[in-house]
Amino acid sequence: MIHLPVDDLKHFIETTFIKLGVPLEDAKICADILISSDLHGIESHGIGRLRMYVDRIKSGQIEKKAALEIVRESPTTAVIDGHHGLGMVIGYHSMNLAIKKAGEFGMGAVAVRNSTHFGIDGYYPLMAIKQGMIGMSFTNARPSVSPTFGTQPKLGTNPIAFGAPTDEAFPFLFDAATSITQRGKIEVLNREEKPASKGWVIDSEGNPMTDPKSILDGLSQDQAALLPLGGDTEALGSHKGYGLSTMVEILSASLQSGAFLSALSGLNPDGSNSRFKVGHFFMAISVESFLPINDFKKNTGELLRELRASRKTPGQARIYTAGEKEFLNAIEVRKTGVPINENLRKDILYVKNLLGITDLVLK
Amino acid sequence: MIHLPVDDLKHFIETTFIKLGVPLEDAKICADILISSDLHGIESHGIGRLRMYVDRIKSGQIEKKAALEIVRESPTTAVIDGHHGLGMVIGYHSMNLAIKKAGEFGMGAVAVRNSTHFGIDGYYPLMAIKQGMIGMSFTNARPSVSPTFGTQPKLGTNPIAFGAPTDEAFPFLFDAATSITQRGKIEVLNREEKPASKGWVIDSEGNPMTDPKSILDGLSQDQAALLPLGGDTEALGSHKGYGLSTMVEILSASLQSGAFLSALSGLNPDGSNSRFKVGHFFMAISVESFLPINDFKKNTGELLRELRASRKTPGQARIYTAGEKEFLNAIEVRKTGVPINENLRKDILYVKNLLGITDLVLK
Repeated sequence: MIHLPVDDLKHFIETTFIKLGVPLEDAKICADILISSDLHGIESHGIGRLRMYVDRIKSGQIEKKAALEIVRESPTTAVIDGHHGLGMVIGYHSMNLAIKKAGEFGMGAVAVRNSTHFGIDGYYPLMAIKQGMIGMSFTNARPSVSPTFGTQPKLGTNPIAFGAPTDEAFPFLFDAATSITQRGKIEVLNREEKPASKGWVIDSEGNPMTDPKSILDGLSQDQAALLPLGGDTEALGSHKGYGLSTMVEILSASLQSGAFLSALSGLNPDGSNSRFKVGHFFMAISVESFLPINDFKKNTGELLRELRASRKTPGQARIYTAGEKEFLNAIEVRKTGVPINENLRKDILYVKNLLGITDLVLK
Repeated sequence: MIHLPVDDLKHFIETTFIKLGVPLEDAKICADILISSDLHGIESHGIGRLRMYVDRIKSGQIEKKAALEIVRESPTTAVIDGHHGLGMVIGYHSMNLAIKKAGEFGMGAVAVRNSTHFGIDGYYPLMAIKQGMIGMSFTNARPSVSPTFGTQPKLGTNPIAFGAPTDEAFPFLFDAATSITQRGKIEVLNREEKPASKGWVIDSEGNPMTDPKSILDGLSQDQAALLPLGGDTEALGSHKGYGLSTMVEILSASLQSGAFLSALSGLNPDGSNSRFKVGHFFMAISVESFLPINDFKKNTGELLRELRASRKTPGQARIYTAGEKEFLNAIEVRKTGVPINENLRKDILYVKNLLGITDLVLK
């Protein structure tokens, strides 16, 4: 395991996208979103996914210069067609449009179709928080999660991200897949050559699977499925994770007449690569429309502090609130650098050599 | 177990509220919301809670005639003070205001403070669906759920309700507590004298509890806590249920400077009854701002049909989508009547005798 300085890695990501023909402004957006993921300790969605973006731009699955198009617009809403451009660029501009509308009218929502993977869901609420707003972001994704009582990977990991400003050094920032785990975490375990936890994944008969390589193969071949939050029994709330995932799928496809479920596989019937056609839904709520921002921040901060100060389970040192661990992780990573394991080092080296990037020192 | 006809029971509920001094229009709203719960098969929130409302109106915890007050308003948003009136009446008018704003500007959101228990969360999205809109509803509640790594009941069961119109006979309607189970279900088990499932509730040391009477006592005395969706380990996603619950608490309190967490206990420091000061957050999104309503209905219907038609776990007869079981249940209950077990029969008889209601036949 080596560690690379945050700024060096961010610059490398930016250079990678520029070398691929992505415009400078867009490359900067992508670098900021990917490095945010590593800063937050969400290693599944940061530099670890860079090779995926490179491969998809090379294969033409992602258009490097697509301009997003506003298809329909009202005072508070818009529908955007991403034309298969970089999801991070599309997401950035779409969230900004939602924020602009919320600034004018109190609320804003933007539904996006024909986008591609947009990085960590939690980045977009942070954009709203910086403007004194509540932000929400939803996206569908490649089919990988089974419905309750089913074994076929149909739904995406369909995350929900929600952020709100506080009077503390960091905001409340919730960002989680509606499945127990997500594909990116299985990819990380595969790179680390470690098994997945029992209870995360089932095979086509509903039996547990733990080998990450078999799981990744199975997900692509309709023979493995991640379980929704709540697992596979109604007694523990499987139908709740499944229902939330369906809600995200509806928000990410129905309002924009976009693709959903199996249409997001990225494969044509003959097995060749197709477009991903991912959909997103962004929402911004202007806090000042409800009350002075400082009152809101204080209310939220006090709520979070009461939670953290509550009675701990014997043996537990600390109760966290959402976004706290990520904030602490960012402080640490800025000091020590981004951890890079052996398989990730190989991926970075592959990209570096492929594109002839010389200014990142990596053996 | 006896069964009572839906219309007789609805009329009985209406009469109950009128006898208590609730205005006719408000009594009708309450009756419609409570009977909807029994129709949907959510027996925890229907006629089974009538005695609770009666007791709270009698004790003055709920004001029978409070007028709701709009404290602050923008084109798309409003803050409402419920002045401790009937939560169902406050919820009904607040959701209608959100719908009106969405009709004019595309989106509407109403934040409510100083309300009381508002019945089933899923009723309010249904109001939006009838107007061709997406509806969302959130509420906090008495402290009963522990944060991840904690054992103190701090958060409410904090449900999320989300509904969207479809091209089918019934809508997509998700309505679920962000905890694995909810207080009302424990009350039902207590009336039925059945144990709770292991994995639902922990004691002050983090050990499982299953006796419903001990759980209900423990919840009131800070000695038992319901677990968030995902249970008590991060491996199975405890932090996700906890994070969603915190999101609902923020939406239900921060925007309206309302009460949160322990302030919702309904008890003064001396143990006497206090106001509940519940908060809600309602949202409506006009589908027509994004696309023609029939396109949306078709998109959503096709999405749901693909889920239902997917591969089933061996031994499972059917895959449902959210709102489907409730729709089927309503058809059944209209035919056979609302099931009333012995303890519930006693509660109804208590209310009937207390208020001298003669037109419900019940031995």
